[in-house]
Amino acid sequence: MSHFRTSLAIRQLFDYETWTYTYLLWDEVSKEAALIDTVLEQYERDLNLVKELGLTLKYTLDTHIHADHITANGLLRDTTGAEIIIHKNAAISCADQLVTDGQKFYLGEHAIEVMHTPGHTNMDISYRIEGAVFTGDTLLVRDCGRTDFQLGDTEAMYNSLQRLFALPEDTIVFPGHDYKGFSCSTIGEEKRFNVRAGNGKTFAEFKEIMDAMKLPPPRRLAISVPGNMVCGKVDESAEAAA
Amino acid sequence: MSHFRTSLAIRQLFDYETWTYTYLLWDEVSKEAALIDTVLEQYERDLNLVKELGLTLKYTLDTHIHADHITANGLLRDTTGAEIIIHKNAAISCADQLVTDGQKFYLGEHAIEVMHTPGHTNMDISYRIEGAVFTGDTLLVRDCGRTDFQLGDTEAMYNSLQRLFALPEDTIVFPGHDYKGFSCSTIGEEKRFNVRAGNGKTFAEFKEIMDAMKLPPPRRLAISVPGNMVCGKVDESAEAAA
Repeated sequence: MSHFRTSLAIRQLFDYETWTYTYLLWDEVSKEAALIDTVLEQYERDLNLVKELGLTLKYTLDTHIHADHITANGLLRDTTGAEIIIHKNAAISCADQLVTDGQKFYLGEHAIEVMHTPGHTNMDISYRIEGAVFTGDTLLVRDCGRTDFQLGDTEAMYNSLQRLFALPEDTIVFPGHDYKGFSCSTIGEEKRFNVRAGNGKTFAEFKEIMDAMKLPPPRRLAISVPGNMVCGKVDESAEAAA
Repeated sequence: MSHFRTSLAIRQLFDYETWTYTYLLWDEVSKEAALIDTVLEQYERDLNLVKELGLTLKYTLDTHIHADHITANGLLRDTTGAEIIIHKNAAISCADQLVTDGQKFYLGEHAIEVMHTPGHTNMDISYRIEGAVFTGDTLLVRDCGRTDFQLGDTEAMYNSLQRLFALPEDTIVFPGHDYKGFSCSTIGEEKRFNVRAGNGKTFAEFKEIMDAMKLPPPRRLAISVPGNMVCGKVDESAEAAA
């Protein structure tokens, strides 16, 4: 899938119900691992994979508080002790670290760097590790996240996309979702072919495209955001009573 | 996704309707490319990606005659001239080359080697290229293809899986389908954790598992096999009249 020359391994995982990509990253030497954007319904699958591969789950990294699925981070912390990381603007008390732009985490010798790339929400993080960047709902393949709810901001999105476009062109882009069957892209491709912001589009052009979209609210908004505010530790008795 | 140290690039693509993985492989130097297991409904997407990346589509490689989707190979040949490659047991007149075990194709300096790995059908090919193997419906992540129709053979499948398990353990396994959200695996993982054939299972143990499955026929069997016998060049007037 890419051309890494190091001991870094990346495994893409998919949730068919919500079209969400989860990523397992690990260092082959130390066996330290992180999961990016977990999905509650895939908790068993992902925990099992971590165990099979003999990994130590050190972090669960969220790109933002999701509106379309509930995180498995709380359950994963219970079973593995993995720290829950999210941007400080999320301001949720269940996280272990509320982080800011430039902060770094390590899997063995591999640094994962936090890039604050708001626009879809005010708290989006893109996680950059060597030749790859995990762009959550900011940069999608040929597309970008919506900016019309949950503290979205079209100008912030434009600026975040420009910042991502400034990364080396061969950087592999791993998105948080895809709806056309693309698994990844590169910064070079997105600079040229991204239909919303690529090919040198101005902010005015970008805004016109974004404003013209009339999207329904996410199907799971009403349960996802509250569920993610508690890191997915939804009160099961409350669910049963509902 | 993997650790290739060469100019080989691999892009995984997904068809949500049939859970099929298509793969675009190319050599960054010569820009020669191949598509493995295309899907008719994704013809435009895949052709567009080939164009955007500036690639010359040299081959469309099928792992077998699929029973669950129709290939786009015929259309792709019309527009790009790419040769259609399939195993000789397919015996279809629309292919450009009917190949056998050990045969090689080249993308620039990168050799793609044909491994005849029957069992799901009598014509399955696994395509091996450097540190990766594209296993079609033979080896799936923690799983394998069914052997109960279309000239399937449980003993042949067992032997094909053993042959794949003998590849270097760090070989990346790219399957033809997945139904749990896994994108890939490695030979080492499958040798240990494949639920049907892994962990040193004997043929008798494997056969018991395979015989116990009671699967319905593939949803699209009746249209897919005839459609693939003509490389996806389905007669549109016949379709319209139906």
